[in-house]
Amino acid sequence: MSKLYVVGIGAGDYEGMTIRAVKTLEASDLIVGYTVYCDLIRPYFPGKEFLSTPMMREIERCRLALENAKDGRVVSMICSGDAGIYGMASPILELAEEYGAEVEVVAGVTAAVSGAALLGSPLTCDFTVVSLSDLLTPAETIERRIEAAAQSDTVIAVYNPSSKKRADYLRRCCEIVLRYRSPDTVCGVARNIGRERQETKLLTLAELAEYAADMFTTVFIGNSSTKVIFGRMVTPRGYGHV
Amino acid sequence: MSKLYVVGIGAGDYEGMTIRAVKTLEASDLIVGYTVYCDLIRPYFPGKEFLSTPMMREIERCRLALENAKDGRVVSMICSGDAGIYGMASPILELAEEYGAEVEVVAGVTAAVSGAALLGSPLTCDFTVVSLSDLLTPAETIERRIEAAAQSDTVIAVYNPSSKKRADYLRRCCEIVLRYRSPDTVCGVARNIGRERQETKLLTLAELAEYAADMFTTVFIGNSSTKVIFGRMVTPRGYGHV
Repeated sequence: MSKLYVVGIGAGDYEGMTIRAVKTLEASDLIVGYTVYCDLIRPYFPGKEFLSTPMMREIERCRLALENAKDGRVVSMICSGDAGIYGMASPILELAEEYGAEVEVVAGVTAAVSGAALLGSPLTCDFTVVSLSDLLTPAETIERRIEAAAQSDTVIAVYNPSSKKRADYLRRCCEIVLRYRSPDTVCGVARNIGRERQETKLLTLAELAEYAADMFTTVFIGNSSTKVIFGRMVTPRGYGHV
Repeated sequence: MSKLYVVGIGAGDYEGMTIRAVKTLEASDLIVGYTVYCDLIRPYFPGKEFLSTPMMREIERCRLALENAKDGRVVSMICSGDAGIYGMASPILELAEEYGAEVEVVAGVTAAVSGAALLGSPLTCDFTVVSLSDLLTPAETIERRIEAAAQSDTVIAVYNPSSKKRADYLRRCCEIVLRYRSPDTVCGVARNIGRERQETKLLTLAELAEYAADMFTTVFIGNSSTKVIFGRMVTPRGYGHV
């Protein structure tokens, strides 16, 4: 039986990878991934063979990885952040049977977690992760999930807040949340996490509605108790005696 | 200004730590944490000074770390999983001003992410993370969040599903979800992640309601599209042509 690893590489910097991810990639004959992610980690694994496919070619990329594993090579499919969360573990697991491949998923630090650490501690308690991309999920489902999270006062981490075709999606998301939360609600954005020009910014929910996010931005919408402490976004754990 | 690191150590095995977490702890003069977590990582950092306090002594632990950092030592406060998610980053950030400390949060792989990788890929798309512990969050708030997530068809990752005092909390959580989802909904549990006697189990939502979870269990409740593929729990990404 052939073996395929699906590896979450974290945000893209070497130090953000787990020891397991590094060891798995070092032990691989071939690393397969989206072009941008391959370019990000290539310097850390010199001499290693890489195979990349452009964006939107996810299934092709999965089949490429599985074909190569079938030939007896140790293959790792890389994903930015975690291997599962908006990642390739799921389509690989769906296709693996066809190729008789055994799949091992190697977890990584997803952008909600790495971005939160840069901002402070917005995700201290219960939270919801939502992607605004409606390529694979109907827009109504996404809006229903945002509304449910807003209503129940959970912090919201927003992936894919914007793209060329979806310039106003973050505004629509904020408008839904504004039905339940104050315009002064503490929000934060983390951009280019673990990469060049990494930056964070705190802003109110009203300001976030006007914010020009790009596809390298992860957005955090605080709940009713989230506050700013010395420039950091903090959702208190709730220890009364702090 | 003194400096304090809050470090997410992942599930507890060395390979689950990020390179940054390992480097930060290696560069620390003192590592502070809950007794169990200190014991977990002590073998990886021989000769390093550790200071531990038992459970429920969180604020005392934070002050201990901040006091030591004030004395000019490089101090790391460790948290299992991530530093922020149900971790110590938030109380440390709240107290840091009092001690004039600069705080750096080092992200780690939280149990929702490491447990999901062991099960397959349950958290592929939108999901909600909820803790059933009502020590710091009112039970009504927790139930409202479970209901909101259940209603909006997001996958739910459940932390702290049980304790001696809360033996029936997981059952109550499942009863809420059962109002909106089929008893056959695919669920999974991951126990002792990254530690001795690590185990995973797939079960239906009806079975989960009867499951005797302990405090080392992380629970995953699938959404309407989650399925079992060769013994793995998979929420499809939604690529139609798989």
